[in-house]
Amino acid sequence: MKVYEFKGFPNPARVRIALAEKGLTEAVEFVSVDVPNGEHKQSEFLAKNPSGTVPVLELDDGTTIAECTAITEYLDHTSGETTLTGRTPKERAMIHMMQRRAEAGLLDAVGLYFHHATPGLGPDIEAYQCSEWGEHQRQKAIAGMHYLNDVLAQNTYLAGEQFSMADITAFAGLVFADFAKIEIPAECGHLKAWRERVSQRPSVAG
Amino acid sequence: MKVYEFKGFPNPARVRIALAEKGLTEAVEFVSVDVPNGEHKQSEFLAKNPSGTVPVLELDDGTTIAECTAITEYLDHTSGETTLTGRTPKERAMIHMMQRRAEAGLLDAVGLYFHHATPGLGPDIEAYQCSEWGEHQRQKAIAGMHYLNDVLAQNTYLAGEQFSMADITAFAGLVFADFAKIEIPAECGHLKAWRERVSQRPSVAG
Ligand SMILES: N[C@@H](CCC(=O)N[C@@H](CS)C(=O)NCC(=O)O)C(=O)O
Ligand SMILES: N[C@@H](CCC(=O)N[C@@H](CS)C(=O)NCC(=O)O)C(=O)O
Repeated sequence: MKVYEFKGFPNPARVRIALAEKGLTEAVEFVSVDVPNGEHKQSEFLAKNPSGTVPVLELDDGTTIAECTAITEYLDHTSGETTLTGRTPKERAMIHMMQRRAEAGLLDAVGLYFHHATPGLGPDIEAYQCSEWGEHQRQKAIAGMHYLNDVLAQNTYLAGEQFSMADITAFAGLVFADFAKIEIPAECGHLKAWRERVSQRPSVAG
Repeated sequence: MKVYEFKGFPNPARVRIALAEKGLTEAVEFVSVDVPNGEHKQSEFLAKNPSGTVPVLELDDGTTIAECTAITEYLDHTSGETTLTGRTPKERAMIHMMQRRAEAGLLDAVGLYFHHATPGLGPDIEAYQCSEWGEHQRQKAIAGMHYLNDVLAQNTYLAGEQFSMADITAFAGLVFADFAKIEIPAECGHLKAWRERVSQRPSVAG
């Protein structure tokens, strides 16, 4: 298997954490795509992922899989117990719900702020920007942090007592928020404690 | 189980189709939430889904599950073979990837157009609108139709030769597009033929 990515970027980080959680890091070859210089918008890469984003997982039969949720589903079902996506129907449902909330309410909101209300990846790549929407998404990301904090006042992890794909998404969202200079509100103590707990996992600490 | 919804709306329609595909329609009680009058933004409903959207699945133990992907994962894993979300790791990955593309590139894009660049659900509910972003999402939805048409030039269904959750999402996207008056481009013949094929399934035709 190959993973096309750009090291240090938040979405590729999700797949790196999932690989490490599953003990699969050594089973893949990482291929660097030069995102800062727009290689992800050129035809060779667009043939692998028409959405023009990293990461992409390429299977040995040539199948290419984009979207971190889809890649994580694949990895979680190919090796060992399905710890990241859930073992029972109810676990699966809670994890997918919280994953989507962490994505829409935090990670993607931060991304929209970064790409629309800041210089983002620069004028060559940010062909269209809507700064009003970007600023609105910044507010959404902060509301998302408050929401996740409320969830973590009740549970150890976002979908219950087990670490899951939802935690990976939210963790990547906070990494991106740091980069985009959106601070975690001071009153979100549960979110901060959870972040500390997650950052100590071997899959994250490295 | 209960499903909180508003009949005829595109996201609730996804769950109705999934229930029918799984033979579970009779196993749930449908509860109507008065979305046009804002019942979904009041505290009683927000306690079930803080995102303030329908549908929501409530299990007999009181657990509430929002997000159609999460609800579909639950239903697909509680009854019979996992036909909607895939049987193998590769099927699961393809379905989740295409589901996400159909959602971000069509259904949600149409929704953003409707809520931001048209009167949407009216001034009481559409507290914030960004018409520039809404118009941009209209273009994204049309690009999404072209992309899905290209996929359907190769495959019978969006994730391969089997009907799946990805088809349900895209079908709901086209229903919403009709409602929002975004037409399928004339040259998207594969998409139109697929729509006709899907609309004849008993789960959709009713
Ligand atoms: N929903 C996608 C998001 C992928 C994404 O946005 N990746 C970023 C890097 S963190 C990217 O490729 N951005 C380049 C661009 O938007 O031009 C996923 O789950 O993989
Ligand atoms: N991603 C959500 C979308 C749910 C959604 O947007 N539902 C619409 C009805 S089709 C809604 O409740 N809209 C009310 C509003 O946005 O105020 C899902 O998968 O359930």
